[in-house]
Amino acid sequence: MTSSEASLLARLSLNQETIRQWSLPELADGCARAGLRGVGLWRAPVRAYGPRAAARLVRDAGLVVTSLCRGGFFTAEDPAERRAALADNRAAVEEAATLGTGTLVLVSGGLPPGSRDLPGARERVADALAELAPYAAERGVRLALEPLHPMYAADRCVVSTLAQALDLAERFPADQVGVVVDTYHLWWDDTIDAQLARAGGPAPTTGAEAVPGRIAAFQLADWITPLPEGVLLGRGQLGDGAVDLRRFRARVDAAGYRGPIEVEIFNPSLWSRDGAEVLTEVIARFTAHVA
Amino acid sequence: MTSSEASLLARLSLNQETIRQWSLPELADGCARAGLRGVGLWRAPVRAYGPRAAARLVRDAGLVVTSLCRGGFFTAEDPAERRAALADNRAAVEEAATLGTGTLVLVSGGLPPGSRDLPGARERVADALAELAPYAAERGVRLALEPLHPMYAADRCVVSTLAQALDLAERFPADQVGVVVDTYHLWWDDTIDAQLARAGGPAPTTGAEAVPGRIAAFQLADWITPLPEGVLLGRGQLGDGAVDLRRFRARVDAAGYRGPIEVEIFNPSLWSRDGAEVLTEVIARFTAHVA
Repeated sequence: MTSSEASLLARLSLNQETIRQWSLPELADGCARAGLRGVGLWRAPVRAYGPRAAARLVRDAGLVVTSLCRGGFFTAEDPAERRAALADNRAAVEEAATLGTGTLVLVSGGLPPGSRDLPGARERVADALAELAPYAAERGVRLALEPLHPMYAADRCVVSTLAQALDLAERFPADQVGVVVDTYHLWWDDTIDAQLARAGGPAPTTGAEAVPGRIAAFQLADWITPLPEGVLLGRGQLGDGAVDLRRFRARVDAAGYRGPIEVEIFNPSLWSRDGAEVLTEVIARFTAHVA
Repeated sequence: MTSSEASLLARLSLNQETIRQWSLPELADGCARAGLRGVGLWRAPVRAYGPRAAARLVRDAGLVVTSLCRGGFFTAEDPAERRAALADNRAAVEEAATLGTGTLVLVSGGLPPGSRDLPGARERVADALAELAPYAAERGVRLALEPLHPMYAADRCVVSTLAQALDLAERFPADQVGVVVDTYHLWWDDTIDAQLARAGGPAPTTGAEAVPGRIAAFQLADWITPLPEGVLLGRGQLGDGAVDLRRFRARVDAAGYRGPIEVEIFNPSLWSRDGAEVLTEVIARFTAHVA
């Protein structure tokens, strides 16, 4: 292994949905045994286990929590639904802080039932960020807005490109609102190189304070076809699909991002296998196709 | 009905895949009875019936052919496959000319098997346009490059946005290469208003010759979820989904496009019904949601 491969492997983090058959203790143990340093967690299993207990479990295994998935779903027009969403996101911020991660992933939400007003829904996302960002910042948590593939624009996420996510994030200080870069959602975009460079922020000039970039998280999955019904659970293992993962990673590097690289694959074919075997495969694929 | 509704209805064209249970004679008869003036045809049924006979059938019914779907699939790397694709596209040009339509819809093709080189595939689309455009222009046919939704980027069409399609089309004279604007593929894009304005071309100045815009065809379908497996046959009847069709149509109007408006919905739930009933519904939905 070259030293640059080794330094990339040190950044590899497993998003727990990739091996959702593992309980949290199995996840912490399995990742530690495999030599990983980080895990990305989801709210439902963390809440079921207890955030404090989960934080201790992961810490005791020598791991850090690289992100918490996920808050968001900010697009409701109904005031009561909207208040409930904001309250739930404040709880998510608390959970992230308890877990010791500075990154809360946000999926914006789709169109409200019957609505066709994409610009209006997108503006409500900005309104919610304005309410939550200072609250999160006080707790050491940065909001990480994730653009999802345009095929989710109606029912899941009205923020569909990195450019759009950056347009929203840039209304706020960079240390309060960043973006999630996920190869599965963004690989097709012919403007992605320019947008990644934009996300990286200006190069720090001598004597000036470093300006943080906007990339709060970097996630990997490959794009495979045919897509399954509902298009949620068809992500590909690294190297199985159409994404030039190494080239993409190099562009994220060039943008100045040096944080964790999470593998997040939703695919029942991985969930039906032995977790340790899947993780071994993830690491091998990461080495072959990303590092 | 207002006069502006009537003038929009006069532009309504039925793409035959919307009612694919109809034979060509049934299509010509059914559309004429419903008062339509145009139909969009597909190559396979036209070839099975014979292009000359199909042309006569449609003309005798008092209809025009608004477009022929479709040529394209230009992304093969193998020289023999590439030659075969170009030959097939020349045949499609001849068929369009025989049918009397000036619009041949092109779907660019996806990544070749095992390839991850999107920019390379896109460049091969440009190369093919360069070979075909003069050939088509001599026969009175304009190539109409269709951007498909990004969910098809790997396996069907590496041209995913209107901006990309225009970047390619603008390398050629506007009367040789245009673009297809289809609501199903483009509705999610927050840059669509600007790109539609760009596609419309510059406003003609007094005394100058009118510059043709790039919009060669305008197609309608609604976006409904959940998407079916393979994501090909899940298009929605007008008004059933997330697309603000009236607003979109107004933007296409504002861009200066005055040509046919084709309804092209791929959905087995329409194919299992009586064709005349489906067409009556299409016209009612067009009036309610588009005109």
